[in-house]
Amino acid sequence: MDKIFRVNMTDLTTTTEEVPLEWVGLGGRALTSTIVASEVIPTCHALGPNNKLVFAPGLLSGTAAAQSGRMSCGAKSPLTGGIKESNSGGTTAQQFARMGIKALIIEGLPQEDKFYSLHVTKDSVTISEESELIGKGNFAVIEDQMAKKGDKVGVMTIGIAGELKMAAANISVKDPDGKIRSHGRGGMGAVMGSKKIKYITVDAEGCGPLQLADSDKFKAASRVFAKSIMDHPVAGEGLGTYGTNVLVNILNEAGGLPTKNFRYGQFDDHDKISGETMHDTIVARGGKPKHGCHKGCIIQCSQVYNDKDGNYVTSGFEYETIWGMGANCCINDLDAIAEADSLMDDIGLDSIETVVMFGVAMEAGILEFGDSQGILRLLREEIGQGTPLGRILGSGTGIVGKVYGVTRVPVVKNQGIPAYDPRSVKGIGITYATSTMGADHTAGYTIATNILGIGGHVDPLSKVGQVELSRNLQIATAAIDSTGMCVFIAFPALDIPECLPALIDMINARFGCELSGDDVTELGKSVLKLERQFNLDAGLSNKEDRLPEFFKSDPVLPHNAVWDFTDSEIDEFWNF
Amino acid sequence: MDKIFRVNMTDLTTTTEEVPLEWVGLGGRALTSTIVASEVIPTCHALGPNNKLVFAPGLLSGTAAAQSGRMSCGAKSPLTGGIKESNSGGTTAQQFARMGIKALIIEGLPQEDKFYSLHVTKDSVTISEESELIGKGNFAVIEDQMAKKGDKVGVMTIGIAGELKMAAANISVKDPDGKIRSHGRGGMGAVMGSKKIKYITVDAEGCGPLQLADSDKFKAASRVFAKSIMDHPVAGEGLGTYGTNVLVNILNEAGGLPTKNFRYGQFDDHDKISGETMHDTIVARGGKPKHGCHKGCIIQCSQVYNDKDGNYVTSGFEYETIWGMGANCCINDLDAIAEADSLMDDIGLDSIETVVMFGVAMEAGILEFGDSQGILRLLREEIGQGTPLGRILGSGTGIVGKVYGVTRVPVVKNQGIPAYDPRSVKGIGITYATSTMGADHTAGYTIATNILGIGGHVDPLSKVGQVELSRNLQIATAAIDSTGMCVFIAFPALDIPECLPALIDMINARFGCELSGDDVTELGKSVLKLERQFNLDAGLSNKEDRLPEFFKSDPVLPHNAVWDFTDSEIDEFWNF
Repeated sequence: MDKIFRVNMTDLTTTTEEVPLEWVGLGGRALTSTIVASEVIPTCHALGPNNKLVFAPGLLSGTAAAQSGRMSCGAKSPLTGGIKESNSGGTTAQQFARMGIKALIIEGLPQEDKFYSLHVTKDSVTISEESELIGKGNFAVIEDQMAKKGDKVGVMTIGIAGELKMAAANISVKDPDGKIRSHGRGGMGAVMGSKKIKYITVDAEGCGPLQLADSDKFKAASRVFAKSIMDHPVAGEGLGTYGTNVLVNILNEAGGLPTKNFRYGQFDDHDKISGETMHDTIVARGGKPKHGCHKGCIIQCSQVYNDKDGNYVTSGFEYETIWGMGANCCINDLDAIAEADSLMDDIGLDSIETVVMFGVAMEAGILEFGDSQGILRLLREEIGQGTPLGRILGSGTGIVGKVYGVTRVPVVKNQGIPAYDPRSVKGIGITYATSTMGADHTAGYTIATNILGIGGHVDPLSKVGQVELSRNLQIATAAIDSTGMCVFIAFPALDIPECLPALIDMINARFGCELSGDDVTELGKSVLKLERQFNLDAGLSNKEDRLPEFFKSDPVLPHNAVWDFTDSEIDEFWNF
Repeated sequence: MDKIFRVNMTDLTTTTEEVPLEWVGLGGRALTSTIVASEVIPTCHALGPNNKLVFAPGLLSGTAAAQSGRMSCGAKSPLTGGIKESNSGGTTAQQFARMGIKALIIEGLPQEDKFYSLHVTKDSVTISEESELIGKGNFAVIEDQMAKKGDKVGVMTIGIAGELKMAAANISVKDPDGKIRSHGRGGMGAVMGSKKIKYITVDAEGCGPLQLADSDKFKAASRVFAKSIMDHPVAGEGLGTYGTNVLVNILNEAGGLPTKNFRYGQFDDHDKISGETMHDTIVARGGKPKHGCHKGCIIQCSQVYNDKDGNYVTSGFEYETIWGMGANCCINDLDAIAEADSLMDDIGLDSIETVVMFGVAMEAGILEFGDSQGILRLLREEIGQGTPLGRILGSGTGIVGKVYGVTRVPVVKNQGIPAYDPRSVKGIGITYATSTMGADHTAGYTIATNILGIGGHVDPLSKVGQVELSRNLQIATAAIDSTGMCVFIAFPALDIPECLPALIDMINARFGCELSGDDVTELGKSVLKLERQFNLDAGLSNKEDRLPEFFKSDPVLPHNAVWDFTDSEIDEFWNF
């Protein structure tokens, strides 16, 4: 029988609860969002005692299904003020699922000014005081815990950013190789820091494989599913070869690569930071162009990036990070960006929020556009030290804009807008505007259909069809995020007819149920609607479903495109 | 014929316009809010080109009516994100009215990174580049302009806070003695700074007295009105003797004097910062216990506060400032508070927002509770120098809370909650929650009836009658703010039957119209409703009409009171 672990940090107690009937069919984002929506007062202070931090593996996590190792983390976000789900690779989703942990709910705030750690096994959660690792970076925490608890221990940890409750703080997760993945967006690390939990370790020793309702049917569906991924040109080849950074040249070509804090749509030095250049650099330095964020990943969009001397620098080196510190900050030095990526992992910063923020910091005159060494210094000496300037920067894009009186501030619901210009790729603008998560490309990745020709083609420069495209993708993504699957399975799901039925077959074979495609769509819709209602109740009205006004007034080259959706056109998104 | 002056800072042009028919009957807050609501896009960036800064004298400004010298300033607020009206004494309301300037509307943003000044005469507005006074404090600006343009020149100016677009920046105004009054709340100084206007000077030379439709009727009504003020024990005596700081002992006695960042309702050292102590200190040092913020003020709640050597330190030394740096920061040194008041005037900071902010800064550990010298240092060396820490602090209470992850942050709509604990004085809590201005005691000063016995008595600790009380006072205040009258005329208006009819008679005699008391009430209602609609359109839903959750969870001594209004009880405010 699956169970819920509940940790009360106010009185430092833990309980084990049965899974309520209405949560049995849920996992991942559907479950974290349901728990947050039902147990958290929407108007509460995100860092106060009434917020809860919830971890839940997906419906297929713990199985042998390809790409099923994503863990969802949910809470009210200190960054957006709305609901947040942020999922990550690593090892904990599979560990939780195998241990029968449907969700871990952390509530309350300690009464004393001390830090703690949690240790999760199949039987219980143990709370311990922690002092030794306070102030330490995430790599040190992972190293320390692997030394003490073995290489297979799962680790979810916060760096100095989370300890200081910075709104850009993420929760870092140990991947199977002891590297770092992240529950990146929305300040989940600040929520964990507010609850004074430095790290959570997970030990699944002694747990056998998951029991499946129909293992033959599961295996058959799983093979079809995996084949559909490998047969897809982007999921099966492009991502594995160049990583997500394959997108630099593609977006530059499309004129949608935001450059100099969203002034231009193309970056002269795009070649120097492209996926192709990165691939060749990795190979030449003996790194790994392919790497998985969790066991069972066959897409392998991660990589191991070494320095000139062949020493490890970073992995999980994503397009959005490279774009943001690269084109958006006018920096063409991939090594400096890799170093910053590693620092952000160690400090525990969302690497999207942080690089978008640096664009605004440059706008504010805190440093010059192009100053890669300035960024490294600010990360090390200001954010990493928690100085006043560091705290401003660690608070994310919106706060830097407010504190320095900047008007060109690319945020929606106070969350930094990622790597795709919404004027030149209008579908993603609808996603940014309407997502319950704040500006988030993964919430409904229209780049697939606007730019990559996946799932058909919708002209990126026209308004026609974008609302419907974003809506369909956001519904599908909310469902996918509930399965524990990586978001990239959307690509084969859109193009290869066998993919989605196989995914549903796997769920049915896992649980012995009879879900249809319509049921999955309904799940996605219901997740979006309950998240939306939470946000409305928290005070985020449809007036927050808007892009910053400079996208309307400032055309972006090369297409001279502006954001031209009316408010009512955007609001049609919610007509379902 | 009255006129509108419009200044376009984008192309540096000025125009003179006829007063549209629908604005003819409006003045002060009614006019600034009408102009902002009709011309400013509610979702615009408050520091961007689409915001407008509007100045308008009240309907009775420029006449000989007592207390009629208040100027309204309106814009979208960078602090609250909603509409803002902030009125001030000084000389400009009377100058504008005598020159027939119904309103001055400043729009656009300069394209070059230069500062400017405006000079307003009865015929035109002149825009000049300004460099000499950039970086200078408000006292220096006023001194310089008086030297250049004569003692009678009107001055509205921003200090370093406004130049840096800090959200706590005010617009400082020269009073008749060359001292400083302020358009204090809501960051109007940041809006002026965003438009790169360092100061506005006003020259009304050559303008005779206002022409009145019926000067005999006006004089008669004016005498009745003035007598009603002087006959009132608070308006005619208490305020003139002890200033607004008469309230320290009164609120302490009532258990509603927020202490140590709203932890307690009483301050052990209240005597040391009380109005009585202040009065004796002023008299002993040869200062002035009575002083008016504008010509024609007969209440004289301002004062001239000298240091131990008899040298001028500050005037307009208000209860809210003294409470905030005093009880709320646990400081009992009135001289240090006076010095800080002068510094805030010079830097151009809202002295309410700033002292509430210091309570949260102490909560955050930036300095210790009780550290008066620390506050003076932070004002001089951080905020006054625009350092990163200074910028955080200058951004106001809410931002300090966010950047430092503090949960005990007394704000509504991101504006700091002033000097009256809403748990112990529940009517003012309804005003804080519902005011279109964010937390603002002046918007509906229930302290009158909850504590001072003016206009009857409503038990401050009971919920009964508070919503109606706040509603009636907010409606009346919106009307008073439209007349150019000081808010303290509400006291005689509530208690002395002749006062309000005399006020209406003066308006009718001024314009030759036939307004009734009901018309004035309707004006107040319509102002509130259009401000509310602007806020809703800007994204401030009823979920923003709430007090921070700690007021619900943390009882305050001595009454052990909590904030116990339900959301729907609060929302009843808008049923009119």
